[in-house]
Amino acid sequence: MVAAINESAGLAGLPVTDSAPHERGDAARNRALLLDAARALIAEHGADAVTMDDVASAAGVGKGTLFRRFGSRAGLMIVLLDEDEKVQQQAFMFGPPPLGPGASPVERLLAYGRERLRFVWDHRALLSDAGRDPQTRFNAPAMLHRSHVRMLLATAGTSGDLDGQADALLSLLDSDYVTHQVEDLGRSLETQGQAWEDVVRKLCGT
Amino acid sequence: MVAAINESAGLAGLPVTDSAPHERGDAARNRALLLDAARALIAEHGADAVTMDDVASAAGVGKGTLFRRFGSRAGLMIVLLDEDEKVQQQAFMFGPPPLGPGASPVERLLAYGRERLRFVWDHRALLSDAGRDPQTRFNAPAMLHRSHVRMLLATAGTSGDLDGQADALLSLLDSDYVTHQVEDLGRSLETQGQAWEDVVRKLCGT
Repeated sequence: MVAAINESAGLAGLPVTDSAPHERGDAARNRALLLDAARALIAEHGADAVTMDDVASAAGVGKGTLFRRFGSRAGLMIVLLDEDEKVQQQAFMFGPPPLGPGASPVERLLAYGRERLRFVWDHRALLSDAGRDPQTRFNAPAMLHRSHVRMLLATAGTSGDLDGQADALLSLLDSDYVTHQVEDLGRSLETQGQAWEDVVRKLCGT
Repeated sequence: MVAAINESAGLAGLPVTDSAPHERGDAARNRALLLDAARALIAEHGADAVTMDDVASAAGVGKGTLFRRFGSRAGLMIVLLDEDEKVQQQAFMFGPPPLGPGASPVERLLAYGRERLRFVWDHRALLSDAGRDPQTRFNAPAMLHRSHVRMLLATAGTSGDLDGQADALLSLLDSDYVTHQVEDLGRSLETQGQAWEDVVRKLCGT
């Protein structure tokens, strides 16, 4: 039935790569090419300096395809952030220790803080936009990070109000805060990681 | 000389209350009346429900005078916040203990947190607007609060990175955060004060 419609619409003579099953394969391939290209360009030049033209030409894909896949530059950036978030979540929930299970809760908290500081720094532009809205700021994926930190505090036998302590800790990983510390105050990610460790150890009583 | 100019401008015959020295007295009186009226209305109905008409008529002052003094509704709100901030700053810097000098640094930190939670809750609408801008968020008057908390942590002999610890603590007093905890999660200011106390005691090692 679909074939009949295609034929009646005069599409039968088009090259094989434009037929439906192959288009899905091409779509997946183009999507991966575009995301890889965007990631490489952002790593080299920073997110602010990367244009949609850059991404399309680095991927060897038409700009129309790029916009069809991601809707807009913001759409592309959200997909990139979302994919990177998922990779990091896998790592701290199921990956090898000390980030994942197998290390003590305090060791996991220390590893999590240092990993997350790097992630937040690398993704600061987009995280900052997302955090401008108080709804985003306090909801998923923020909730997942909060649950993780709270669970580790609980497993470490931390006394007192775990909600407040988890929130105070996580404020040190807020993207606007980290950006302010590094760009405006000239502190290093290493210093921020040490501050995280100080607070973790005191809250957990180690 | 001033009298001569007034006379030459034909102002000598106007009622005494409109002459310059008295007008300054009236201006101060009107300003105080308007601020008191606004404060009383906000306490009763909440800032969002108070209009400029309400303020002018409660103060028994013309609406034109209200706008001339404060420029706009936002201008009035900023003056109110600023005056209240100054009163609170005086209290924690120079007022009686346990908020002011005379109590131990830990007692002062505990009193400061509870006072500030109430202040932030009462002024949440305007503080939230001011905090939307990352520049405001990390600058004065935020700097003054940060210095105060950092000074008390230092006086308490707190070990480790005091900057990070002061920031983690102060995140518990952020207006968006407090509003979210109370309005969305149903936590009380008392619970938030207890969370503040937990973190203060752990950071200071008491």
